[in-house]
Amino acid sequence: MGRPKWSIFVVDAAAADTRAKPVNLDHLLKLAGPDMAGVDSLIRDRMQSPVSVIPALAEHLIGGSAKRLRPLLTVAAARLAGAKDDGCRKLAAAVEFIHTATLLHDDVVDSSELRRGKVAAHLIWGAPSSVLVGDFLFARAFELMVETGSMSALEILARASRVIAEGEVLQLTRAHDLDLDEAVYLQIIKAKTAELFAAAAEAGGVCAGATSDQCRGLRQYGQDLGLAFQLVDDSLDYSGASETLGKNPGDDFREGKATLPLILAIIRTGEAERAFWLRTIDALEQTDADFERARQLVRETGALDSTLKAAAGYAASAKAALAVFPTGAWRTALEDLADFAVARLA
Amino acid sequence: MGRPKWSIFVVDAAAADTRAKPVNLDHLLKLAGPDMAGVDSLIRDRMQSPVSVIPALAEHLIGGSAKRLRPLLTVAAARLAGAKDDGCRKLAAAVEFIHTATLLHDDVVDSSELRRGKVAAHLIWGAPSSVLVGDFLFARAFELMVETGSMSALEILARASRVIAEGEVLQLTRAHDLDLDEAVYLQIIKAKTAELFAAAAEAGGVCAGATSDQCRGLRQYGQDLGLAFQLVDDSLDYSGASETLGKNPGDDFREGKATLPLILAIIRTGEAERAFWLRTIDALEQTDADFERARQLVRETGALDSTLKAAAGYAASAKAALAVFPTGAWRTALEDLADFAVARLA
Repeated sequence: MGRPKWSIFVVDAAAADTRAKPVNLDHLLKLAGPDMAGVDSLIRDRMQSPVSVIPALAEHLIGGSAKRLRPLLTVAAARLAGAKDDGCRKLAAAVEFIHTATLLHDDVVDSSELRRGKVAAHLIWGAPSSVLVGDFLFARAFELMVETGSMSALEILARASRVIAEGEVLQLTRAHDLDLDEAVYLQIIKAKTAELFAAAAEAGGVCAGATSDQCRGLRQYGQDLGLAFQLVDDSLDYSGASETLGKNPGDDFREGKATLPLILAIIRTGEAERAFWLRTIDALEQTDADFERARQLVRETGALDSTLKAAAGYAASAKAALAVFPTGAWRTALEDLADFAVARLA
Repeated sequence: MGRPKWSIFVVDAAAADTRAKPVNLDHLLKLAGPDMAGVDSLIRDRMQSPVSVIPALAEHLIGGSAKRLRPLLTVAAARLAGAKDDGCRKLAAAVEFIHTATLLHDDVVDSSELRRGKVAAHLIWGAPSSVLVGDFLFARAFELMVETGSMSALEILARASRVIAEGEVLQLTRAHDLDLDEAVYLQIIKAKTAELFAAAAEAGGVCAGATSDQCRGLRQYGQDLGLAFQLVDDSLDYSGASETLGKNPGDDFREGKATLPLILAIIRTGEAERAFWLRTIDALEQTDADFERARQLVRETGALDSTLKAAAGYAASAKAALAVFPTGAWRTALEDLADFAVARLA
C-alpha cells in the first residue's frame, strides 16, 4: 500500500472521534530495539536442530514478516517493571515459540492456506511435519523458560498454553454453530488469543520482580490488548485487503467461522436472512458471490462498527490498567501499542 | 489368549538360554500399587476440562488398557532412590500426559487405525481434536511439573519432549528410506521412545534427591529399557497377534516404516529381493499377500532373531545400570521389568 508498516492513522471508533491522529510504534520499537535484537538471536539460535526440516519449517514461519508482538510485550513489560538484566529476552523468545507452535497447529486444524502472507507451512512440508515441528517449538519454549530459572514464569506460561488449547478445542466444536452467542465467542478469543498476550505481559513483570499489583495490571493490559487485536483481526476479514491481513479476506467466512462481525450480523438480520446464513455458515454451501453479500450485511447492520467499538473499548481499558505504573517512556510506548491495535484498518 | 496379562515366559535370546523362566511384574505392581493408585487419581483429575471433548477424548486413550509403564518407572525410580514424600506421583502423571500427547499426535501423523486395542481417537473425534487435545495434555504435564517445584525435573522433561519431537520428525523424513541403516534407526528410537523412558526414570531419581551417579544410572536404565521395549514392539509387528500388540500386526510394514526387523531383512536379502522391497516399501504398492512374504523373509533371514537379541542385550544393560543402588525390593522389581520387556512375545 506504500504506507509505512508501523505508522498508520487511528480510527477511534469508541469515542466517535473523527479527527484522525497519527499512531506509530516508532517510540516502542526504538526503546525495545536492543532487547528485540537479542530475542531475535535467541529465536534463531534455539530453532536450530540437527533434523534439517525443523529449522527450515521454523524459518519459513518465524523469519521475515512476523511482527513479534507477544515477545515485544514481554520485554516491554519487564522494562516497565524495572528489569535490570536480560532474563526477559529468553522468556520473550519462549513466548514467540509458544505462539508459533499454536499457529502451526492452528493452520493444520483449519486447513488454512496463507499465514503471515506466505503459503501455510503444512501445504509445503505436510501436516505431519507442521504438527511435529509445533511440538518441537513448544518443548523448546519450556527449555528456554527453565533456563530463566523463574518457576512463576513457567507457571504462568504453562497455564496459558493449556488455556489456549482449551480455547482452540472450544472453537473447533462451536465455531460453526449458527446460534453461537457473543459470550461464548468472547470466551473463545479470551482463551485462544488474549491469554497469551496476558501471560506474555505478566511473565515479563514477574521476571523483573514487579509487585503483585503491577503483575495484575500487566496481565489485564495484555488481556485487553489481545482482545482488541483479535476483534480488529476479525473485522479485517470482512473489510481488509490481503496485504494488511497476511491472509485472504473472507477466510473466516469461507470456513464458516463465527466471529463477532458475523455473529452480530446473524442476530441483527434475524429471520430475513436465516436461510442465507444456514446455507453459507451451517451447511458451508457457498458460491463466490456469497462473501460479498455477507460483507454487505456485516456493514449494513452495523456489525462491523460494533466490533470496532468493542475493540476500542478494550484498548482503552488496556491503557487504564497501566495506571499502576508511574508515567514514563515505557508506559507511553505501551499506551501507543494499545492505540495501534485498533488503528490497523485498511 | 487366556494367559494372565502380566505373567508370561521369558525367551532369553541374548543368552541363548532355552529354558523358559517365569517373569511377572506382580512384585513391582504390588510395591508400586499405592503410588500408581495416586497417579491414577491425579491423571483423572487433571485431564478434566470444562470443554467436554477434552476429557472424553483423553478418557478414550488414558482410561482402561494403558499399561502406564513410564509413570511406573518414575515412581519406582523415586522409591528406589529413597523418596519419602509423594511428589513423584505428580511427576509420574506428567510423564504419562507427555506420553499420551505424543501418541495422539503420532496417530494423526501416521494415520494409524488402532491404539491400545481401540479405534484411534482421530478416527472418532477427527485429527484436529487429536492435535489440540494432545497440546492440552502436554501443557497440563508442565503445569503438574511446576507444582512439584523441581526445576531439575522440568529441565529433564522439557528436554525429553524436544528430543522426542526431533525423533518423530527424523522418522517422518527417513522412515520410508530403503537405505535407512541400523545407526539412523537406533538414533530414531533412542529419541522417540527411549528418551522418555530415560527422562521418566531420571526425573524420579532427581525428585527423590538421588546422587548424580544414581541419576545417571537411572537414566541409563530407562534408556536401555526403552530400547528393549521398542525393539520387541517392532518385532511383534512381524510376529505378534493384535491382542498382544493393541494394534494390527503388519501396520509398520503397510506404512512402509523401516524398523530393525525390516532393515535387517532388506540388507540380508540383498539384490535378490530388491524389487520386492522397492515396490512394497519405497513405492508402498502392496497386495494382501505381501505382508506374509515380508514376514517370512524377516524370519528366514534371522532378522527377527537378531532384533530380539539386540533387545535382550539392552535389557541386560538396563539391569547392570542399577548396580549403583544397593540390592533390595525396588531394585529387584526394576530388574524384573527389564526381563519383562523382552518377554512379551506372543
